[in-house]
Amino acid sequence: MQATQYIGNKTFKVLEKEIEAPASGEVRIKVAYVGVCGTDVHIYHGMMDKRVDIPETIGHEMSGVIDAIGDGVTDFSVGEKVVVRPLDDRKVKPSDKGFNHICEELKFIGIDSPGAMQQYWNVPAFTLHKLKENTDLKLAALIEPLSVAAHDVRLSGLVAGETAVVLGGGPIGLLVALVAKEVGAQVIISEVNEKRVSKAKALGLDAVNPINIDLVEYVKEKTDGRRADVVFEVAGVQPALDVMCEVAGIRGRIVMVAIHGQKKEVDLFKFFWKELKLIGARVYEKEDYEKAITLITENQLPFEDMITDVQPLSNIQQVFKNIDNNPDGLKVLMDCQL
Amino acid sequence: MQATQYIGNKTFKVLEKEIEAPASGEVRIKVAYVGVCGTDVHIYHGMMDKRVDIPETIGHEMSGVIDAIGDGVTDFSVGEKVVVRPLDDRKVKPSDKGFNHICEELKFIGIDSPGAMQQYWNVPAFTLHKLKENTDLKLAALIEPLSVAAHDVRLSGLVAGETAVVLGGGPIGLLVALVAKEVGAQVIISEVNEKRVSKAKALGLDAVNPINIDLVEYVKEKTDGRRADVVFEVAGVQPALDVMCEVAGIRGRIVMVAIHGQKKEVDLFKFFWKELKLIGARVYEKEDYEKAITLITENQLPFEDMITDVQPLSNIQQVFKNIDNNPDGLKVLMDCQL
Ligand SMILES: NC(=O)c1ccc[n+]([C@@H]2O[C@H](COP(=O)([O-])OP(=O)(O)OC[C@H]3O[C@@H](n4cnc5c(N)ncnc54)[C@H](O)[C@@H]3O)[C@@H](O)[C@H]2O)c1
Ligand SMILES: NC(=O)c1ccc[n+]([C@@H]2O[C@H](COP(=O)([O-])OP(=O)(O)OC[C@H]3O[C@@H](n4cnc5c(N)ncnc54)[C@H](O)[C@@H]3O)[C@@H](O)[C@H]2O)c1
Ligand SMILES: [Zn+2]
Ligand SMILES: [Zn+2]
Repeated sequence: MQATQYIGNKTFKVLEKEIEAPASGEVRIKVAYVGVCGTDVHIYHGMMDKRVDIPETIGHEMSGVIDAIGDGVTDFSVGEKVVVRPLDDRKVKPSDKGFNHICEELKFIGIDSPGAMQQYWNVPAFTLHKLKENTDLKLAALIEPLSVAAHDVRLSGLVAGETAVVLGGGPIGLLVALVAKEVGAQVIISEVNEKRVSKAKALGLDAVNPINIDLVEYVKEKTDGRRADVVFEVAGVQPALDVMCEVAGIRGRIVMVAIHGQKKEVDLFKFFWKELKLIGARVYEKEDYEKAITLITENQLPFEDMITDVQPLSNIQQVFKNIDNNPDGLKVLMDCQL
Repeated sequence: MQATQYIGNKTFKVLEKEIEAPASGEVRIKVAYVGVCGTDVHIYHGMMDKRVDIPETIGHEMSGVIDAIGDGVTDFSVGEKVVVRPLDDRKVKPSDKGFNHICEELKFIGIDSPGAMQQYWNVPAFTLHKLKENTDLKLAALIEPLSVAAHDVRLSGLVAGETAVVLGGGPIGLLVALVAKEVGAQVIISEVNEKRVSKAKALGLDAVNPINIDLVEYVKEKTDGRRADVVFEVAGVQPALDVMCEVAGIRGRIVMVAIHGQKKEVDLFKFFWKELKLIGARVYEKEDYEKAITLITENQLPFEDMITDVQPLSNIQQVFKNIDNNPDGLKVLMDCQL
């Protein structure tokens, strides 16, 4: 079988390997598509060399078909379409208070252990979610990032009739916006990259560039002065942190989706003054995967337009190079059987 | 009657004035006691000269007795003991979403309009809460800051069996700690002033000095590694902001009570990683006043020990000077009839 490995120094190796039998409690998946996540790009850039056990097969956004079943696995059969929820919470402790998805000893499969960028992948059966037979496996590779979005929107408590402002129109921001719109909210995206503004508009979303317009005034106009009920910070930059406290209305909820590697300045006075709430959000829980699977199965949202490129897995080196050179692209998939 | 005025430049004037009849919709209160709030001290220091309409009678923590009734006021009678909830929300707008207590055009009575540091005080009847006849009017002057604490604890969602860490053992922090303990939570106060640590202990609270011990380790030991379910930031300094994200456990709620005049550094990564929540809290709502009144009426908590000095109102200049020279004192009251 074909497998890939990140070997450090912005380099992937494509290698031939023996197909392995699944261990007890595991299944073997014939991987259909794997999406490239921002985290994968971070790994490629060497930013996570301390955490990743080089050489390592990475990848955690995927879809596939069950190819073999290990001992003790009873709920799955060969031929079933599945996605993996890549959270290994087997070391959960009482002090994690039942929040298994963010438990202190969580292992993220595809970062902390081998991932999906290979032709066949053995994973613990408890990570699997079944898909309907007619599910499009290309779209299904979006389920992992879509679950992030479903989690963010769920934690925000957004309801129909409210207004949500999404700061950042990258893949995650756009998915958050689509899920928020599906809830019945008015959604406004703020994005500085003009190509991505256009893309958001093409997806049917209200998108503006805060370099060209005053975002706060725009949102005030669209809400009769109420401002945003919910703000999603999905840009990860200081200007987004500055505007989030401005654009949020009284008792506004701000969901922190972006990952800020360093301490950043926050206007805590506004938190006090308007009784704002900041809600940290990380990955997803089981119900978020179920929500994302339902959305992909129903296929009522413009998910296809989120996929801007599909390449053979054997081109992995070129795929990562291209992503660096094209910040306008959204979701790039690799076909793991090519 | 005797009245006082802040006239700028760290100076109060004591003056003789005519007693005025209450306007329509107002009552006249014979003020019993007025407490000195940190905000009053800020005003005295000239920090709020832009906001305060000098010369101005300030003061918003008080108790008193109804002395006269204006036209159209039907629910109150002369002789009733009352406290004022000093929020004038008459300019509330739809964009305030019903959160009148923090509405955009809120006027804080005693800062934005004349306050309680005088012998008789005319106020709109809608600001009044009635007290039982047997209520101790000295303790009743604590109802305003106690309502702040009740609001903070309510917004935190703290329940019995949880652990709350209170950063800062000033008057507000101590009241928050007392209310949190009354809920049935394990409460730990962190305070850098040794005199205040001792005071907190004398109030029956678990208090530590983070200069001498590792607060996070202390809390971990007291919680079997769970850390705090709720953190109250009532210190208002950068070290408290740094430790709040450390000491909070998974999905911990952090209530921002302190007022931070400038942008400050916050570890947003921890908000993402542990799915922390930051909850801004400002003043109080009606139900918080009712809760505080119940607590003062029942008098089961060591409120008397919170009052470290009672002085005649005519000594106001000396009272503010003393507060500056004695950072260990807690709540100083002035007797408005002396
Ligand atoms: N919470 C989680 O579990 C989770 C999961 C996945 C990704 N993330 C994080 O979510 C964030 C977004 O992920 P992504 O893959 O979409 O990243 P991305 O970098 O593709 O998207 C960020 C977008 O923000 C835009 N932007 C930059 N400055 C801006 C500004 N001032 N105003 C508005 N937009 C601005 C950029 O042009 C870009 O399009 C990242 O920080 C990522 O690490 C979090
Ligand atoms: N949210 C509201 O509506 C509201 C209402 C009243 C007061 N406040 C604010 O609450 C805060 C507290 O009010 P207060 O009157 O008790 O003030 P205070 O200054 O008396 O109390 C703050 C305490 O924090 C302590 N402290 C300083 N550094 C510390 C550290 N690193 N760790 C632990 N403790 C530390 C100080 O020694 C002091 O005792 C202020 O910021 C005030 O403006 C907010
Ligand atoms: Zn990812
Ligand atoms: Zn006050």
